[in-house]
Amino acid sequence: MLGSTHGTFTTDRRRTHVVACGEPPPPTIHGRAPTTDDLDVSGRPLHADVPDLDRFFRPESVAVIGASDAEGRPGTGITRQLIAWAERVGARLHPVHPTRREVFGIPCSPSVADLPEQVDLVALLVADPLPAIEQLAEAKVRFAVAFASGFAETGEEGAAAQARLAAAVRRSGLRLLGPNTNLNAFEEFREDLEGPAIALITQSGHQGRPVFALQELGIRLSHWAPTGNEADLEASDFISYFAERPEVGAIACYVEGLKDGRAFLLAADRAARRGVPVVAVKVGRTEAGARMAASHTGKLTGADAVVDAAMRQFGVIRVDGLDELQDTAALLARARRPSAEGVAVYSISGGTGAHFSDLAAEAGLMLPTLSAAKQAELHQWIPEYLSVANPVDNGGHPVGDWRGRKIIDAILDDPQVGVLICPITGPFPPMSDKLAQDLVDAAEETDKLVCVVWGSPVGTEDAYRRTLLGSSRVATFRTFANCITAVRAHLDHHRFTAGYRSPFDEAPRTPSPSFRKAQALMRPGQQLSEHAAKQLLRAYGIRVPREQLVTSAAAAVRAAGLVGYPVVMKASGPQLAHKTELGLVKIGLTSASQVRDAYRELTDIARYEDVPLDGVLVCQMVERGVEMVVGVTHDALFGPTVTVGLGGVLVEVLRDAAVRVPPFGEDQAKAMLSELRGRALLSGVRGAAPADVDALVEVVLRVQRMALELGDEIAELDINPLMVLPRGQGAVALDAFAVCR
Amino acid sequence: MLGSTHGTFTTDRRRTHVVACGEPPPPTIHGRAPTTDDLDVSGRPLHADVPDLDRFFRPESVAVIGASDAEGRPGTGITRQLIAWAERVGARLHPVHPTRREVFGIPCSPSVADLPEQVDLVALLVADPLPAIEQLAEAKVRFAVAFASGFAETGEEGAAAQARLAAAVRRSGLRLLGPNTNLNAFEEFREDLEGPAIALITQSGHQGRPVFALQELGIRLSHWAPTGNEADLEASDFISYFAERPEVGAIACYVEGLKDGRAFLLAADRAARRGVPVVAVKVGRTEAGARMAASHTGKLTGADAVVDAAMRQFGVIRVDGLDELQDTAALLARARRPSAEGVAVYSISGGTGAHFSDLAAEAGLMLPTLSAAKQAELHQWIPEYLSVANPVDNGGHPVGDWRGRKIIDAILDDPQVGVLICPITGPFPPMSDKLAQDLVDAAEETDKLVCVVWGSPVGTEDAYRRTLLGSSRVATFRTFANCITAVRAHLDHHRFTAGYRSPFDEAPRTPSPSFRKAQALMRPGQQLSEHAAKQLLRAYGIRVPREQLVTSAAAAVRAAGLVGYPVVMKASGPQLAHKTELGLVKIGLTSASQVRDAYRELTDIARYEDVPLDGVLVCQMVERGVEMVVGVTHDALFGPTVTVGLGGVLVEVLRDAAVRVPPFGEDQAKAMLSELRGRALLSGVRGAAPADVDALVEVVLRVQRMALELGDEIAELDINPLMVLPRGQGAVALDAFAVCR
Repeated sequence: MLGSTHGTFTTDRRRTHVVACGEPPPPTIHGRAPTTDDLDVSGRPLHADVPDLDRFFRPESVAVIGASDAEGRPGTGITRQLIAWAERVGARLHPVHPTRREVFGIPCSPSVADLPEQVDLVALLVADPLPAIEQLAEAKVRFAVAFASGFAETGEEGAAAQARLAAAVRRSGLRLLGPNTNLNAFEEFREDLEGPAIALITQSGHQGRPVFALQELGIRLSHWAPTGNEADLEASDFISYFAERPEVGAIACYVEGLKDGRAFLLAADRAARRGVPVVAVKVGRTEAGARMAASHTGKLTGADAVVDAAMRQFGVIRVDGLDELQDTAALLARARRPSAEGVAVYSISGGTGAHFSDLAAEAGLMLPTLSAAKQAELHQWIPEYLSVANPVDNGGHPVGDWRGRKIIDAILDDPQVGVLICPITGPFPPMSDKLAQDLVDAAEETDKLVCVVWGSPVGTEDAYRRTLLGSSRVATFRTFANCITAVRAHLDHHRFTAGYRSPFDEAPRTPSPSFRKAQALMRPGQQLSEHAAKQLLRAYGIRVPREQLVTSAAAAVRAAGLVGYPVVMKASGPQLAHKTELGLVKIGLTSASQVRDAYRELTDIARYEDVPLDGVLVCQMVERGVEMVVGVTHDALFGPTVTVGLGGVLVEVLRDAAVRVPPFGEDQAKAMLSELRGRALLSGVRGAAPADVDALVEVVLRVQRMALELGDEIAELDINPLMVLPRGQGAVALDAFAVCR
Repeated sequence: MLGSTHGTFTTDRRRTHVVACGEPPPPTIHGRAPTTDDLDVSGRPLHADVPDLDRFFRPESVAVIGASDAEGRPGTGITRQLIAWAERVGARLHPVHPTRREVFGIPCSPSVADLPEQVDLVALLVADPLPAIEQLAEAKVRFAVAFASGFAETGEEGAAAQARLAAAVRRSGLRLLGPNTNLNAFEEFREDLEGPAIALITQSGHQGRPVFALQELGIRLSHWAPTGNEADLEASDFISYFAERPEVGAIACYVEGLKDGRAFLLAADRAARRGVPVVAVKVGRTEAGARMAASHTGKLTGADAVVDAAMRQFGVIRVDGLDELQDTAALLARARRPSAEGVAVYSISGGTGAHFSDLAAEAGLMLPTLSAAKQAELHQWIPEYLSVANPVDNGGHPVGDWRGRKIIDAILDDPQVGVLICPITGPFPPMSDKLAQDLVDAAEETDKLVCVVWGSPVGTEDAYRRTLLGSSRVATFRTFANCITAVRAHLDHHRFTAGYRSPFDEAPRTPSPSFRKAQALMRPGQQLSEHAAKQLLRAYGIRVPREQLVTSAAAAVRAAGLVGYPVVMKASGPQLAHKTELGLVKIGLTSASQVRDAYRELTDIARYEDVPLDGVLVCQMVERGVEMVVGVTHDALFGPTVTVGLGGVLVEVLRDAAVRVPPFGEDQAKAMLSELRGRALLSGVRGAAPADVDALVEVVLRVQRMALELGDEIAELDINPLMVLPRGQGAVALDAFAVCR
């Protein structure tokens, strides 16, 4: 099956589309049949399919099917807004209605076929958009928007109707936004704002409203894609498209459920390659949230830890609140690449500086101590008893005169400093008005990032509304926390993209030689015995202990001699789990008689417990090392994922593990280890030797290869424990567990 | 020394005061010598010393020393503001100046002695307030405020000057606010606002400004205490005082460093007894923050985890940002005791409801599923396909007409629901204006808490400014996160105070019989041998293994016979640590010959490593149980603290431990265990028997008793490991480590 990339591709797409669409999409990549260059070894695509949406957002001609100007009809308001929008963007608009002659004074066509020209975009105001799809395709319409609700968001029946709509759209070749979407894409965007813009994607129109409202605070927005039920076009399509637009500085997303995990990764990869930051709220932190999100949009919500990991792998900045989404996207859209990662905190109050610095340092920002020379320079203007090491406390008074600007410039001039943050906790116009103006002026003359936190809860002050919000160079926040979150995201984003190498470029295209050996071991629908699972690992070059499977006490003794004393003996059978609890493991056997006794005892217990055995394993005993767990788990959204964790009973309790979605490189395998709370164990604790981390990383990568090549044939794979030996000595899989699909 | 409660009291106070004051305060409680009823067994006070500050905040007469009306003089502005304030509060004001006849037209006295009447409060505008203190005391002045800076905040020299000032104040009997404070206490508070008020305490005036500004959003403030350098009056004094004031609904604190840990606990205890919530920002999450805070106010910053625990023990709500301080204090000041802990989320958008609910559930709020009957009731007004289970999604339209109010009332009427939260993400006046008004109207007619999140970043909308902020019954927030934080704090506060029993009521006043035995074992300045440390534990009724200290191989064999095989043997000596690493522990010895060999080997190693032994311990071997650590550590601010954690090598890595400041009761000892990430180990993992948690709690309480009685004589105490046996079988201290002071 894996031999035919075409076949696997279809299978995979079926799995990830099943809820939203109910039917597999045709196996095409950019409109043609896929080749091995387009697909990785698992049959998943390697490139985002970027739709050209220029004519969607800026059509030359638009038709409105179901247009109305009758008072009280639901379509009337929409028609009115579409007419206004078409005028703004310079598109010709054609109402379509079977009986009306004109709508709002514009001549009406009775049907799509009667339109006076080929149109770029059709707005479907009808309750059931399905019958229109074929006509639109015949009329060579490129884009349609379906506003109607009553689809997947309402339950099973609606989901079936949506699947029929999606199938019709796929057959037609046109691209559809919706159903269950709204007019957000056709809002009036302010044209007078400068600088790079935020492009917004939302799966709930209402939730995008505050980001849109940022324009009232002087932040430019270029697009809004309200993706609704995503029968066709999905959030990932818009991420890919926006990442290519020169006016887009950052992409802000509000996501309730991802339609296709791989499409999301490819879109995020595209944005990462181009250095365009993607900031996302993803609902579903809790099981409760996931359930509610599902009931709201009818889409699949992946397990949250996997979504979280996938976002981090591809540099997507995940935030929780819409306020964080606004503040972070606004900063990332407009701030330039930082020249240094150091943050300087400047305040007119020592208390404010200390408080802000405390929270900033806690969040991982780096506040370098300013050099003695820089401090001496600052003390020209700031009294000697105030600390200017960073945070810089000016005590208030220097702000009011010529010294204020000099201090700001001197801090910005420090090569360690890439970001200057000035928290203004309380407005005191004689000081804060001048301070705000100085910061705005200084920001105009530097490439460095200047941030202000306007701490007053009132927010009607002139220094805030006019001076600070009037500047496109100063990033203004209302809380310490949001400023810190955004600045950290900014620094993280640039560090990430500077070192980014797309894992898709290096993802394997063809099966490894291991694959054929592994296939012979597969037993569809069954759990493999420990011995068989270990053979699978060996096929992929993962070391297992010397061991033999025996079926008599005499053979056990011979095996022990070959394996070398002391030995471990374990019952082995296809349905065995929890061997230790059942007493089916004997360790530290040092003599032939102990081996003989153990063989008898193990087979007795198995008989008593009624577990079928394929024999008893006589294994080399490996004692010294750090116990880890490495495994493959299937995620409903992303397919096979790779997990690594600390082994042993304590970690069963603490669930200290990290997960990644393939494909990923060595850097991410190492990052997984650094996410473990107990990672210090690998460095050697209480005089223990440091563990062979390189060997552990290698095992993680080999397990990833298994996940990619066998992902559709293996339901679960666990190495538990993987004993990581002291540095230079490798890692050994002491036990393994595998279930075939 | 512990025999004299007086002596220990002085010692303790010296320790906690040393940085700020340099000299111990006199051992008085409420102006008289302490009795055993006022002090616990450690010599620390059991009751807060609550100053009567009525005349400080509402004096009948005020004098201003160093009053000035000369243009450009620093005291002129302050004089002007004090005159205005005195007028507002109806106090007679008397300027004092050696040479002026009048200031701003008010007759001037040349000195304090010449004042026309006895005054309640004196404002000291002079650069050095020290010389005035004695005169003020002679004139029977009750309160003084010193504005001068240049004290402990500037370094050692300033700290010495502050210590002299503090000593003079103590001798005088007057109470001083400052030095290095400002006019915040004498601000103009709005008199037109209703309901319970926030009382504010800040150690940095600027940092209190946004809380004060809440008045512009309709939140009432009653007091502001800017405590400055706290040479005398400290934040804790104001907490105690405000907790007694009927108009105060909540106390908001901005704290950089606590002056006296015990005074803070007693103040928090007083507020907890009276059910008055205390919300605090405490700088010092990071070492960096702590250092900066110290340089700012010259006070001692305790280790943050201990501060955090102490606050939780006494129900103080700790927040990080000033925005959280504002929002949480405002809610807690005004919200009534909840009738139920259930939270209902109501929104005009399914997306908003799902998003908010996800974050709320993640933060631990309980969102009950509404009953079938309630859902049916709501579906009278809300279309059937929308989910009303909680969150309640009305789809928008019902808000616009008579149904809007009915829905709100129906939700509020549910007995499971104590809190209704309505997030309004985007303002859409036709809907949101009506929704806001309905919420305000409904809130007037219910005792339940109604919260709104106004999600627009603009904040100039009428529905927000007029309707919502105009209501004292609706709590309005700007972010999901702050709403969730505040509502959680509200529910937590009422749950905490409902079950609160003051640990000071039950704190031991007199030494236990164990104490005399323990004293005989003390070796000042020395580390105790393992054997001696275990005797100390036995003195306090903590079980240790059967063991004997022997000094010959033959005696070891006899001891093993008495203790019972298998045995553990360990080298024992006063300076021994890390015995395992040195090979000075032998476990699992099962025969006389093994014991003899072990004796020889241990003494050989000790000789080779040059460690003096007092002998070799032959101990009972205890294998089955959960290894824990229990210990006593000295905190610079709070004195001896008790720590409990998981034992073993993994937890050395994960630092999974909880700490408490004595005195605390059994409830807190149990709460410590529930804070441990690995707590599941105590319940039994992989078929292990549940551990004897009651015995563990008892050991924690006995160790607390040791901390209280021996706290000043023991620098460190560790039981590591404490083996907690299966339920009903107790806990055994397998090793112990103690250092005397």
